[in-house]
Amino acid sequence: MRLSRAFLPTLKEVPADAQVASHIFLVRAGLMRRLAAGIYTFLPLGWRVLHNIEAIIRDEMNRAGAQEVLMPAAIPAELWQESGRWEKYGPELLRFSDRKGAKFCFGPTHEEVIVDLVRHDLKSYRDLPQNLYQIQSKFRDEMRPRAGLLRGREFIMKDAYSFDVSVSAAEASYRGMYAAYERIFSRAGLAFRVVEADTGAIGGSQSHEFQVLAESGEDTLVACDGCDYAANVEQAEVVAAAPLKSADGPLEKVATPGKKTIDEVAAFFGEEPARLIKTLIYMADGKAVAILCRGDRAVNEVAVKKLVGATELYLATDAQVTEATGAASGFAGPVGLAIPVYADRELEGTTGMIAGANETDFHLTGVKLARDAEVLAYAPVRMAEAGDLCPRCEKGHFEVLRGIEVGHVFLLGTRYSEPMKCTFLDEEGAQQPMVMGCYGIGITRIMAAAIEQNHDDDGIIWPLAIAPFAVEIVGLGADAEVASAAEELYAELLARGIEVLLDDRDERPGAKLKDADLIGIPLRVVIGKRSLKEGQLEV
Amino acid sequence: MRLSRAFLPTLKEVPADAQVASHIFLVRAGLMRRLAAGIYTFLPLGWRVLHNIEAIIRDEMNRAGAQEVLMPAAIPAELWQESGRWEKYGPELLRFSDRKGAKFCFGPTHEEVIVDLVRHDLKSYRDLPQNLYQIQSKFRDEMRPRAGLLRGREFIMKDAYSFDVSVSAAEASYRGMYAAYERIFSRAGLAFRVVEADTGAIGGSQSHEFQVLAESGEDTLVACDGCDYAANVEQAEVVAAAPLKSADGPLEKVATPGKKTIDEVAAFFGEEPARLIKTLIYMADGKAVAILCRGDRAVNEVAVKKLVGATELYLATDAQVTEATGAASGFAGPVGLAIPVYADRELEGTTGMIAGANETDFHLTGVKLARDAEVLAYAPVRMAEAGDLCPRCEKGHFEVLRGIEVGHVFLLGTRYSEPMKCTFLDEEGAQQPMVMGCYGIGITRIMAAAIEQNHDDDGIIWPLAIAPFAVEIVGLGADAEVASAAEELYAELLARGIEVLLDDRDERPGAKLKDADLIGIPLRVVIGKRSLKEGQLEV
Repeated sequence: MRLSRAFLPTLKEVPADAQVASHIFLVRAGLMRRLAAGIYTFLPLGWRVLHNIEAIIRDEMNRAGAQEVLMPAAIPAELWQESGRWEKYGPELLRFSDRKGAKFCFGPTHEEVIVDLVRHDLKSYRDLPQNLYQIQSKFRDEMRPRAGLLRGREFIMKDAYSFDVSVSAAEASYRGMYAAYERIFSRAGLAFRVVEADTGAIGGSQSHEFQVLAESGEDTLVACDGCDYAANVEQAEVVAAAPLKSADGPLEKVATPGKKTIDEVAAFFGEEPARLIKTLIYMADGKAVAILCRGDRAVNEVAVKKLVGATELYLATDAQVTEATGAASGFAGPVGLAIPVYADRELEGTTGMIAGANETDFHLTGVKLARDAEVLAYAPVRMAEAGDLCPRCEKGHFEVLRGIEVGHVFLLGTRYSEPMKCTFLDEEGAQQPMVMGCYGIGITRIMAAAIEQNHDDDGIIWPLAIAPFAVEIVGLGADAEVASAAEELYAELLARGIEVLLDDRDERPGAKLKDADLIGIPLRVVIGKRSLKEGQLEV
Repeated sequence: MRLSRAFLPTLKEVPADAQVASHIFLVRAGLMRRLAAGIYTFLPLGWRVLHNIEAIIRDEMNRAGAQEVLMPAAIPAELWQESGRWEKYGPELLRFSDRKGAKFCFGPTHEEVIVDLVRHDLKSYRDLPQNLYQIQSKFRDEMRPRAGLLRGREFIMKDAYSFDVSVSAAEASYRGMYAAYERIFSRAGLAFRVVEADTGAIGGSQSHEFQVLAESGEDTLVACDGCDYAANVEQAEVVAAAPLKSADGPLEKVATPGKKTIDEVAAFFGEEPARLIKTLIYMADGKAVAILCRGDRAVNEVAVKKLVGATELYLATDAQVTEATGAASGFAGPVGLAIPVYADRELEGTTGMIAGANETDFHLTGVKLARDAEVLAYAPVRMAEAGDLCPRCEKGHFEVLRGIEVGHVFLLGTRYSEPMKCTFLDEEGAQQPMVMGCYGIGITRIMAAAIEQNHDDDGIIWPLAIAPFAVEIVGLGADAEVASAAEELYAELLARGIEVLLDDRDERPGAKLKDADLIGIPLRVVIGKRSLKEGQLEV
């Protein structure tokens, strides 16, 4: 493609709303433009990258025996009511009515549609397994779209759905997709890590995320330095440290005026933060619960959600804290609380701890949970940390990484096939629910993640496999010989089937090279008057 | 692909809601399934056809110098308000609000989005021309979705938009797209006709439709048998026949009890229908107008809309007719009418005509419009017919064809660029509005039109270029030698890069051949035990 004819508008300025590198460079290098919050138009250069990613995905999905289909974006509400997601899915689900008042949603995922398709057309164990996928624009009405394509509202996904006769057959399908995903991300030239993950709103029994490693990643991952174990920190198993014990004294109430934070209280008492009991009040499906962990730990909300069985969980407001504890926020503690109390396993058996007194400006010392509080359950609810002992090999320790989730595989089981009656006749003629898996790849997000992982201050550095062009030819100056050498090379590379961008614009060398740095085509051929005379090109 | 592993569910039954051949066979041959009215899922076989059509389109669009982009489906209302279409576009426009209450539409076309893109990034005459296209799912909330993909609600379109510095440059872009479209539909193996067309809700000064010829087509076309002229009947120019004259007698009121239709009145008077003045009462943007034409003609409502300058036009109800004429429906006439009266050019200069008397059960004879009625304008508002003299060559005559519109090109001019201030600086440094064209192809509709044009009672007969597979191999019977010969041929064709479908199912010969007829792969190789012994295959 000739830059002089291309719609490839580069910008010098950083867009006002862009913070992360991928967002900045996608706009500055002329790959996309904002239409509305979290909604972007892909320009020719961006489209070429997406197309390259899609080609790799199609190739590997077909190789793995999956078949491509295309489902509608508009999904009737009835199907989502059948699966129960119409009520459960929050305001991220874009709902609308057609001109006759029939309710629809703009599909963020397509489990219901594919199950409806399969239950009508597949009847026998002989029709299985099947694995169907599609590449499609999806919509999720994010509360706060941000970071460009990393958290947008309209985005392109590849979603696949497998149907099997048994859990073991479904596990084989799952492994097949896992392997295909490894090939896809490897071929795309990305450094990634597969981690165990939470199944979240999709449901199912097992799940792995494919995380592109990048400092700017939204997700925190832990990986063992001694074995293969790696997990999203939300899902990571934790080993409880031995309980801290000290002289088993009596409870004592101490005035701690204005000391609210863990650090303030620890300093006041001259103790390590680990000696404190952190008491967090959460609203779980609207009801207050107290979650305890050691003062030096963070609480894993995904683990709390599972522990208390809540679908919606958020930290209580100051007013809700006061209502639940009788004290200002910062003085909550387990002793005498009337709401359900759950504690992290590390607190089991501790003695001589410090906790809030549920009275403003007071704390308790000598707390022994087993004696002083009513704890419903001790369970691992703390967040894994760097240096934690690995729960699998029990030898290695965790290191912490940052990642961008670009793929997610779920072993769904019968989460959708049971309520939606997607069954088959087995060899004995009995009706059985199909066992499902589902598998997603964020195509637009891969484009952004590739940039987060591969850029410098001047611009993008594309992995060759997904680069919009393999080669850029830059002719410097207005010299006729330079221009004709550039044209000659351009024609020759095109004839060899290589994707080439030719900067044939009437621009100064500095501007051309700056744009080339910004756009980041992997191979650059610079043709200058002087080096050309010496029979040389700069590659 | 192996049929035993493919998701290719064929059906014996005709779907209850399907009338036209393409709808019936798309469902029966396992290419698509209905999700909601006018909304379909494309199964692997259907997806392959769509993919083949898209590949031809991309190839020819790129060859014509257009660049592919991808715009969002969700379009903010503000842009449509700028162009004025937010108010003008009827309930076919699917509107919705996001979680914050911001208004959007699900784009049925993307003029506003592309203009918004271009006006921000292209500033100078040196940046032009540009031609940008996309392939995308669109939504039009049809009142009565019908005929499967021929009038669906969610469908796939290729839409392209050109931007030029002048009308003559825009005309060159238009001709380039016209030529590309001819290549696209030729390569797709379709018999089609290019006709002049109405610009409708899109606007602009010139437009052509690409019509796939098929008996079942919704559109009526006229084509001259002596020259190149062809047009959608809505747009066709008509030559006025010489005015009918008879003895110039006085007006006379004649009782015609119960004679309402043209045929009844003509029979009553013993005259040809051409001797009658047909008087139709329309509501044009809510106001009644009378349109006159010869009794043997039909009125072209597109021509009427343009003549009276209305955006909404429909036939008056019986009550509205009575309000406008004072008589029951069937007795309207031009004499003494208080509403605006327009007449077809053929009525200019006629004498001795018969018309309704605007009094129930009475007609007038001896009508001479120039004397007896107040006609605002004589203009060509009748529908063209078979046998009409061609208005271009004035030698040939019209034949009437039926077509399915699969492509439409518009020379838009500045319809969008002026209100949306999409301007460029010309060589003199003056701001000028860009001159636009827009160009659409219905990709899902091509798939249906190809079937309407190419099928028999047993199924589809795919044109090779868009067929889901080039070859189908059918092995008959459970013979091991037949199976191994089929496998051998399958492997050999695959190795040569040919798309092959192998029917390796454990089915009876009759069922296999019936399915092969239904699916309609262009080349079929049948391998039977007997012919195989004789060293023969049936192709």
